[in-house]
Amino acid sequence: MNSTLETQLNHRSIRAFKNTRFSEETLNTLITVAQRTATSSGHQAASILRITDPKEKEAIAKICNQTYVATGAELWIFLVDQKRNHDLSLATGLEESNAGSFSRFIQGFTDAILMAQNVVVAAESLGIGTVYLGSIHNDIPQLNEILNLPDYTFAALGLAMGYPDQEPELKPRMDMALRVYENSYPSKAYTLEDFKAYDEHLATYYDLRNANTRVDSFSKQISKRYSGSSNRDNFLEEILKKGFK
Amino acid sequence: MNSTLETQLNHRSIRAFKNTRFSEETLNTLITVAQRTATSSGHQAASILRITDPKEKEAIAKICNQTYVATGAELWIFLVDQKRNHDLSLATGLEESNAGSFSRFIQGFTDAILMAQNVVVAAESLGIGTVYLGSIHNDIPQLNEILNLPDYTFAALGLAMGYPDQEPELKPRMDMALRVYENSYPSKAYTLEDFKAYDEHLATYYDLRNANTRVDSFSKQISKRYSGSSNRDNFLEEILKKGFK
Repeated sequence: MNSTLETQLNHRSIRAFKNTRFSEETLNTLITVAQRTATSSGHQAASILRITDPKEKEAIAKICNQTYVATGAELWIFLVDQKRNHDLSLATGLEESNAGSFSRFIQGFTDAILMAQNVVVAAESLGIGTVYLGSIHNDIPQLNEILNLPDYTFAALGLAMGYPDQEPELKPRMDMALRVYENSYPSKAYTLEDFKAYDEHLATYYDLRNANTRVDSFSKQISKRYSGSSNRDNFLEEILKKGFK
Repeated sequence: MNSTLETQLNHRSIRAFKNTRFSEETLNTLITVAQRTATSSGHQAASILRITDPKEKEAIAKICNQTYVATGAELWIFLVDQKRNHDLSLATGLEESNAGSFSRFIQGFTDAILMAQNVVVAAESLGIGTVYLGSIHNDIPQLNEILNLPDYTFAALGLAMGYPDQEPELKPRMDMALRVYENSYPSKAYTLEDFKAYDEHLATYYDLRNANTRVDSFSKQISKRYSGSSNRDNFLEEILKKGFK
């Protein structure tokens, strides 16, 4: 055990922040950690958009449908960014580039998410609380407009950060026996029985945190959310609209 | 500064490993860190495939076209895994699920990459060297067959880990002034001038590491690699073949 592992094993999302800004030093540290993150083929095909304008924060919080999005010290959007290397390709004399290949989208998306998680661990090691915002994808066209995103870019994930003003409990996770396989994916269908212990554990957790919130078991949550069409059925279309194919 | 940040700021890929296995405790620690990683909506839609069979390691190293892939103590493949929640949905009585929605692919891909980076930081904090393997995507159909991957899963990223038998220098990265924007994506095209300092810095680095390796500047590397069609033109097609749409 060491302090890095302790930080990682104590991860929880923070959704209430103190009204304290980050020092310049802290901000620079987080950006340098992002810079040092592993990147596919060294292409550095991801970028960070720092949202500092209060009105823009509110507009993004509205898309996310979560007021706490705008209340952190920092709100960052991690971008797939193949536009920079596309520009550079043309500047070197190429007439066109393969920046819009779907494998380039995947490359940039991977770079963006690696960077996000590295920043989260760094922030938490400094006592900062974080919450990822997949909910930026609730309205991708509107988000693109707010962020002025050009072709060969895509908003991969949002992140709100700030000093914590709450102490949530660790959220139970399913046993890793259900998630770690050896050599090949198991040829079996999962049953309700496989999730029985986790269902009971998770229901208890919600009860403890707030008597008024849902106490659905994992099975019930999944059954509800995986029923009907997803609320983001246009996802692939929105990626393709940015020039990826 | 703290030991977590020191670990992160010293990240480099390791491609030569000592012949030392991980202890059970170390292995369990890495798996528990993976378990505690943030996950979209709590769905835990990513899994880990540990490759322990020597022949299978060789087969994957061949796809990657990198011999060191098979020489680490551990070889992990991080999976998009919506199959588990799909099975669970049906087990609760649903006739179909939205596990194959493209937004579910993105959700699982994000979960997988967050988990990979969290494991990398944990491993490095324990003195373990790591290298990501995007090269598993050189032959996705062959990889799917080796791993026995069913519908609603996808191999997102590989990771080789082991105790380092080399000490590479830190690889230069472009200035973050080129990668961090505020409030909106800049309406400008990058020029060769923007990359001049980095081009010079990167060329120096390769020279120092090994006089026989390429000394291409960043601009030349990007110009070569973004020219012509990508070598992974079937990427989107391969994702769709796994039931995502």
